[in-house]
Amino acid sequence: MANVNHEGKEWATACLVVIGNELLSGKVTDVNVPFLTKRLFALGIEVLSVHILPDHHQSLVAAVRDCSAKADYVFTTGGLGPTHDDVTLKAVAEAMNRKFVHSPSLEALLEKLYNLPQGPQRTYFATIPEGAELIHPPESDYPQMVVGNVYLFPGVPEVVRKKFELIVDRFVSCPIFTAELVVAQSELSIVGILNRIVYGCPDVKIGSYPGHDNGAENVRLTFDSRNEQSLKTAVEMARKELA
Amino acid sequence: MANVNHEGKEWATACLVVIGNELLSGKVTDVNVPFLTKRLFALGIEVLSVHILPDHHQSLVAAVRDCSAKADYVFTTGGLGPTHDDVTLKAVAEAMNRKFVHSPSLEALLEKLYNLPQGPQRTYFATIPEGAELIHPPESDYPQMVVGNVYLFPGVPEVVRKKFELIVDRFVSCPIFTAELVVAQSELSIVGILNRIVYGCPDVKIGSYPGHDNGAENVRLTFDSRNEQSLKTAVEMARKELA
Repeated sequence: MANVNHEGKEWATACLVVIGNELLSGKVTDVNVPFLTKRLFALGIEVLSVHILPDHHQSLVAAVRDCSAKADYVFTTGGLGPTHDDVTLKAVAEAMNRKFVHSPSLEALLEKLYNLPQGPQRTYFATIPEGAELIHPPESDYPQMVVGNVYLFPGVPEVVRKKFELIVDRFVSCPIFTAELVVAQSELSIVGILNRIVYGCPDVKIGSYPGHDNGAENVRLTFDSRNEQSLKTAVEMARKELA
Repeated sequence: MANVNHEGKEWATACLVVIGNELLSGKVTDVNVPFLTKRLFALGIEVLSVHILPDHHQSLVAAVRDCSAKADYVFTTGGLGPTHDDVTLKAVAEAMNRKFVHSPSLEALLEKLYNLPQGPQRTYFATIPEGAELIHPPESDYPQMVVGNVYLFPGVPEVVRKKFELIVDRFVSCPIFTAELVVAQSELSIVGILNRIVYGCPDVKIGSYPGHDNGAENVRLTFDSRNEQSLKTAVEMARKELA
């Protein structure tokens, strides 16, 4: 990752492609998005978008292709297993214009890991995008696969957490400074002042979230910036004018 | 909604566009996706995709336009408030090729609801996509807005739940029949048989989710179909060959 990425931003960006019919039918509630967005934010990586998609080849090809072109890193979760509904590898191959080829080294590993007998099943399970990088951290079993800027994670949350931390050093960005301020007023009553601060501090991303505290309206203001001084200025303005 | 929609499916489809910087930085964990996907599945509506996007005009315009073209219903959550980071209404107007116009009737309502004085703030808050339908269920305060096939919900989960149930009769589809079977085997060991069932029952959507029970591997199989007889056949095959 360069210091300035291909969108002209001075930090790294990411997209998440979260795969599984069970997430779209509501049978399973995803917890990988909260984990990955929090971790990426802490690393200073801006998440541009998250797409939750079914086990459907063409939908995945389109999304991965689009995300890979617009972000520095793409993280997929789900669809890596051996059954008919595991279609991620083939879709990533097509999205990244790679052939879908047999990997003798992965097949040897699968034999060792799962004691899987030779046959069409093992061959299928060892068919991957051409040129895919297979990372074998010592603590891990099934390797972490990387195709270009696309990092393929399984769906199982504990495995995602473990694998992400094992390769976290690869993800480089510049830090985001953050602050928060709760204002004991209604959101409607602060709009005018808030707008002045927003337009006066263009390199600070300000969020405004109305809430309640013991029945009284309040607003949680969040401040994010790559520039620590700008952050301080914005928070100071808000504190002076609103708190 | 016709019985056969524009994708040739005999049931209704939906996309969700979930809006808010706070969801992409991990500061807030979305709970509207689990709610909406579960409710839509129960209504027989197939969710084609979910997109979580920042408060960014062009990203929202592209996603809403794309989703509105491919699905029968689009549900947006978030970005309806009065502050600078509430950009949904303007983006939906552009996505749906509508002008962004002042609504005297909404302004009158806002005055009544929030006791908001006349001024640029109230005018801005009452500027909406031309031709937007405003639904005023008696139990609700701020109206439910609909633009073409796009239903605009706020981000606050309790309000989403309440508003969805108030207009649920609008969403018509044909039912999904479902079943589940837990098999006390490893996923790898059932792939061959599972594939035969999958290819033998093309109108049944089968999901395979590996898990553990007291340390022993198992697989949860899920079956969804619009055809009750096909569902029964698939479950019967699985029960006979795997359980």
